[in-house]
Amino acid sequence: MAERIMTTIDGNTACATVAHKTNEVIAIYPITPSTSMGELADELSARGQKNIWGTVPLVVEMQSEGGAAGAVHGALQTGALTTTFTASQGLLLMIPNMYKIAGELTPTVFHVSARSLSAQALSIFGDHSDIAAIRGTGWALLCSNSVQEAQDFALIAQAATLESRVPFVHFFDGFRTSSEVNKIEELSDEVLRAMVSDDLVQAHRARSLNPEHPVARGTSQGPDVYFQGRETVNPFYVQVPAIIQKAMDKFAALTGRQYHLYDYVGAPDAERVIVVMGSGAEVTEETAHFLMKQGEKVGLLKVHMFRPFNPALLAAALPKTVKKLAVLDRAKEPGSVGEPLYEDCVTAAVEAGLQVEIIGGRYGLSSKEFTPAMAKAVYDELAKPNPKNHFTVGIVDDVTFTSLDVDPSFDTEPSDVVRALFYGLGSDGTVGANKNSIKIIGEETDFYAQGYFEYDAKKSGGNTVSHLRFGPRPIRHACLVTSANFVGCHQFSLIEQFDILGSIVKGGTLLLNSPYPASETWDRLPRKVQDQIIAKDVQLYVIDAYDVAAKVGLGGRMNTILQTCFFALSGVLPRDEAIAKIKEAIVKTYGKRGQKVIDMNFAGVDQALANMHQIKVPAAASGTLAMRPPVKGAAVPDFVANVTARMILREGDSIPVSAMPVDGTFPVGTTQYEKRFIALETPIWNPAVCIQCGKCAMACPHAVIRLKVYDPAVLEGAPEGFRSVDARGREFAGMKFTVQESIEDCTGCGLCVEAC
Amino acid sequence: MAERIMTTIDGNTACATVAHKTNEVIAIYPITPSTSMGELADELSARGQKNIWGTVPLVVEMQSEGGAAGAVHGALQTGALTTTFTASQGLLLMIPNMYKIAGELTPTVFHVSARSLSAQALSIFGDHSDIAAIRGTGWALLCSNSVQEAQDFALIAQAATLESRVPFVHFFDGFRTSSEVNKIEELSDEVLRAMVSDDLVQAHRARSLNPEHPVARGTSQGPDVYFQGRETVNPFYVQVPAIIQKAMDKFAALTGRQYHLYDYVGAPDAERVIVVMGSGAEVTEETAHFLMKQGEKVGLLKVHMFRPFNPALLAAALPKTVKKLAVLDRAKEPGSVGEPLYEDCVTAAVEAGLQVEIIGGRYGLSSKEFTPAMAKAVYDELAKPNPKNHFTVGIVDDVTFTSLDVDPSFDTEPSDVVRALFYGLGSDGTVGANKNSIKIIGEETDFYAQGYFEYDAKKSGGNTVSHLRFGPRPIRHACLVTSANFVGCHQFSLIEQFDILGSIVKGGTLLLNSPYPASETWDRLPRKVQDQIIAKDVQLYVIDAYDVAAKVGLGGRMNTILQTCFFALSGVLPRDEAIAKIKEAIVKTYGKRGQKVIDMNFAGVDQALANMHQIKVPAAASGTLAMRPPVKGAAVPDFVANVTARMILREGDSIPVSAMPVDGTFPVGTTQYEKRFIALETPIWNPAVCIQCGKCAMACPHAVIRLKVYDPAVLEGAPEGFRSVDARGREFAGMKFTVQESIEDCTGCGLCVEAC
Repeated sequence: MAERIMTTIDGNTACATVAHKTNEVIAIYPITPSTSMGELADELSARGQKNIWGTVPLVVEMQSEGGAAGAVHGALQTGALTTTFTASQGLLLMIPNMYKIAGELTPTVFHVSARSLSAQALSIFGDHSDIAAIRGTGWALLCSNSVQEAQDFALIAQAATLESRVPFVHFFDGFRTSSEVNKIEELSDEVLRAMVSDDLVQAHRARSLNPEHPVARGTSQGPDVYFQGRETVNPFYVQVPAIIQKAMDKFAALTGRQYHLYDYVGAPDAERVIVVMGSGAEVTEETAHFLMKQGEKVGLLKVHMFRPFNPALLAAALPKTVKKLAVLDRAKEPGSVGEPLYEDCVTAAVEAGLQVEIIGGRYGLSSKEFTPAMAKAVYDELAKPNPKNHFTVGIVDDVTFTSLDVDPSFDTEPSDVVRALFYGLGSDGTVGANKNSIKIIGEETDFYAQGYFEYDAKKSGGNTVSHLRFGPRPIRHACLVTSANFVGCHQFSLIEQFDILGSIVKGGTLLLNSPYPASETWDRLPRKVQDQIIAKDVQLYVIDAYDVAAKVGLGGRMNTILQTCFFALSGVLPRDEAIAKIKEAIVKTYGKRGQKVIDMNFAGVDQALANMHQIKVPAAASGTLAMRPPVKGAAVPDFVANVTARMILREGDSIPVSAMPVDGTFPVGTTQYEKRFIALETPIWNPAVCIQCGKCAMACPHAVIRLKVYDPAVLEGAPEGFRSVDARGREFAGMKFTVQESIEDCTGCGLCVEAC
Repeated sequence: MAERIMTTIDGNTACATVAHKTNEVIAIYPITPSTSMGELADELSARGQKNIWGTVPLVVEMQSEGGAAGAVHGALQTGALTTTFTASQGLLLMIPNMYKIAGELTPTVFHVSARSLSAQALSIFGDHSDIAAIRGTGWALLCSNSVQEAQDFALIAQAATLESRVPFVHFFDGFRTSSEVNKIEELSDEVLRAMVSDDLVQAHRARSLNPEHPVARGTSQGPDVYFQGRETVNPFYVQVPAIIQKAMDKFAALTGRQYHLYDYVGAPDAERVIVVMGSGAEVTEETAHFLMKQGEKVGLLKVHMFRPFNPALLAAALPKTVKKLAVLDRAKEPGSVGEPLYEDCVTAAVEAGLQVEIIGGRYGLSSKEFTPAMAKAVYDELAKPNPKNHFTVGIVDDVTFTSLDVDPSFDTEPSDVVRALFYGLGSDGTVGANKNSIKIIGEETDFYAQGYFEYDAKKSGGNTVSHLRFGPRPIRHACLVTSANFVGCHQFSLIEQFDILGSIVKGGTLLLNSPYPASETWDRLPRKVQDQIIAKDVQLYVIDAYDVAAKVGLGGRMNTILQTCFFALSGVLPRDEAIAKIKEAIVKTYGKRGQKVIDMNFAGVDQALANMHQIKVPAAASGTLAMRPPVKGAAVPDFVANVTARMILREGDSIPVSAMPVDGTFPVGTTQYEKRFIALETPIWNPAVCIQCGKCAMACPHAVIRLKVYDPAVLEGAPEGFRSVDARGREFAGMKFTVQESIEDCTGCGLCVEAC
């Protein structure tokens, strides 16, 4: 067995690294959340990184996923080992080629970060709808449940496709796995080489279209022989399960990590079993272990091989004691009897003669959280005399009443895992610094680490929430942090609006980036926040990181400063060691920008702790400030108040089905009600120097600056301090002129100032 | 109830006529076998044909089916009633838009002539693989089993989509239904108007994207609300079955034709039931009735509503006595537990608590024949103690042994149905004349009529076989004619190669178009044919129709002449009446080409019977001619001998699975072995006038003419009559020159003569 080398990377990186090492042609077209796999492959080849045979894979970007699939099909026919990365609608565009690639028994692996399909709305987030849509193409479908598996199965799939000649889709959960950073054991080139048989590569080459030994392929067959031709592939599909298992067993011998097509985990005498694939299996596994310790006879069956689906192996993997199965699908097919995995399991049970009661349910559509509490709700449902079939879990369905009740207080997370939450704004450096922190902890300590990052749709200037975990064991808790020991609020405006302390544990630490002096900050907090701090005995630390950054020459880049504070407060590493590692990371990240940038960042780190202050929390709250409402306006429409506002407040999960439009139709003109207050600095009109050129208004991309020329009479009753000057220009003689800024909507981008 | 108006048309025409009458925008892209639906719609609009609201639908051809689906999606969002027609890969390209159209609850009907998907080879023929590939899109899927239903369900689907807001795919079997000509009851505009509610059309309009009442649609939803949004549609899907049934009931009140979502037919106490959809249901229904008369407790469940799939309604439609179900799928999904309809039925049975044993099987892929004998094989299998699951029927699977044994002698066809087979060559007018004959009989008599036409892939000059039936009851025998009362062989070369009399009944009639005088024809027949004629007591009639055609000025167009002979011999109509109808048809068909053409055809008709002769068949065969072998060559490769040759002989159905390549790979250069002998006239080189310019060889599109300049020494041992002249040109001094024609490969196109 090779030496254990640990690395802390996300699922896409884990997968694409193996794919790049074991292919020769890679045709790509970007689609979230698979994009970074193609980008990484492109970057590796651009850097001259070679595959295990010593050649640099050719990476080519096509005009669409349809083109990528066609390019892959063509390259495969030349005998090249070929792959692509995609998701969602991208995968849909590959369907026509996929039927042909399978019909021609062509070995390849497509790596898919599974994502929702556009229906009532598009969604870039993760579920298995796209995988469900291709389950009839004749491809083997192999599911990874974690970052570690996304790497390992990328290799196992490559080995198995070459031996079986059946093409593989290797998939894992978009975002939850593709973008989760986790500490995994890296595969060495020796393992890669041992798993991929050169003989089978040669056999693939020998089947290529080649003028030296010409054959005709892609012909037309009619009623006389097409049916027989279609049945010729049966023996190949019959062999696939054994071939995958053989690859898994060989992989286990090489790495010590043993997988099975259907991995049962749980009580050996389990009566209630959940069948699930993807990251939900990790959560369910944690839950099952937790419940087993309480004496419950529960377990779960992890489906790695979704196609070919094998009833006998599935039945054999289950304990004989099973009475009830709940099959969880991360997909919805309206009008079907049930979702795909459920229908497969029902049919498999009938064929295998299993005497079990089976229910099916949907969970986690579009990266909807799937938590231990939800897994427990499913086990609880199974325990009822007449469990609900075709349920949903994770939402409130007050229309067709499919949803299960979930006890939100149920949690399985061990207390020795450090859980940290960071609130920031898109592009403020928070996410980048956190990825750095995970890498430092994951790679420089024995701790395992996990990071997951939420972004809203507003990108730069939108909200970001970073969910970090550090602990002594591999972290399989594939869901958001809901009870944090540490909360970092990197933007003061966020604590004025969002329930940032809702998920802090009693005695937890809050690090607040405050533009106010430490002495003033307490009084600037909304009353509700003060109450929470007192009630939860929160340790409150504040720093004006923007001020520190400005002083050391970093401008608005306060991320390394706050990162330093986090390390100091969390104690995951000894303080000096942490600071040394942060500085190493700074050299790595900013090295190519020159010594000056490095020095400024070093200064930021050194200044951070000096400028961080613990606030003595008073015994009673005294604040008078209310939380800032999510929407504002003279007449806020009901829909905005009941739906949009809750989404803005990050409380969209609690919106019931009845509140959502049935066909994706939304009212227009609703952004006017959302006031984000995200600008640290806003422009102030200086009437004394203004030449009334209007460039500021034209330059503002957020329509925040308005110019008005008006009758002086309307100034009557203007609020105090409202400024105006005489309008310039002959045609405006006798009129007044004002430039007004909506600072609630301003992003502080500074373009108006540049234009002035 | 409206007046019964009968019409004799194919399934595409039946469907597209209704679609054109009930839509406003039609976006098309041609793909076999749906093409003629788009063409008809285009033609109707070009002619100014109005829909039931008095406007001419806008028909627009896009750049691909992807574009057609996008155009449909867009037009629907403007509130226009919109449709398209497609099949196979075309439907695959529509998948991304289909998820969105369903997610947005947009009423529309796509009409699909279901076709195989390209896998190991493309196929233009019919099965349900394309429908299976879209079953997850959230569309209602409504299946027509016959030409009558293709018309009726086009309307029922339009009514139901408007009421339910769920989009519909209305599908029927490609070729078997789309291209079968049958006598059906036509829908009047009154029925169309009664079925399509103006209020629902207005409701669709009111939901359109319109600047007068702007809304946002096609937004992005994230993990917070996408799941809830996706579940909002549940009540709409719950209502679909009742809405379709209501439309079916209203349709029944208007037309007298009552349909149900799941139509059970058969013994009220049936124990063995076949579940099937599409034209196979027609065949199964005939078979069930036949077996019931023999006391067998059998029945069938016709699935019209494939999505939403409703377990309770399905179970309710079955008799309580059912013990075993065989679910037939016209699709294959390698790696699945079972095919789609099978998995649905198993799940439905479990959910409905049905105590039945269920097996599933594949049939009819790519228009593979599905006959009463095959339906009986399935019933027989069900009667066994351990019936085979995942069987195939209609092929010989000697690899994984899935196939059921079929007794080819079993037939259910009533003796009062006239069955006629016509063998011709593509473009020789045979198919056109037969379509004319069906129309004459269908529309001018009380007889029901059915026509189905086989073409091979060679188009012009390829083989055609026309299968015609006429009888006193509606003809549901949706398979080829295998026991013909009448066989027309329109090309003499065909009887020299193909087993044309293999399916003639004892005492049946053979009409042979012979280029030889009647007195010589018997001796020109292969010995095997003579034996068959004698053994089966065949009434043999011959005519030199090409000679008649040439004499009356019709050139090579002998179709009306042979049509006249058919009417005279078959006796379906009184001879004089038949001739009058043929002449009417000639005026209709050729009227616009002028009186002269009409007169020539009339003369052909009049001359036909005078030139037709019955041959007195001797008591014993005396011929010495062998059947012409399908392939020829010095060293015919095994594959050509065992596979290609059998396909050429129209015996491809009997090729077993083991003989077919597993991945669609075929040897190249095999056309050299096939000698078609289809030219009526072939060129003869005239050395006396030849200037050796070489134009003849250059002009030949079939590479039939070769020029050689060679050493006179090689002439030694040349066969007698081998012609050569001195080669022209100084550089060829002393050499010989020959032009040689391969008349076996010549098509008689005449281009060499024109070039000379």
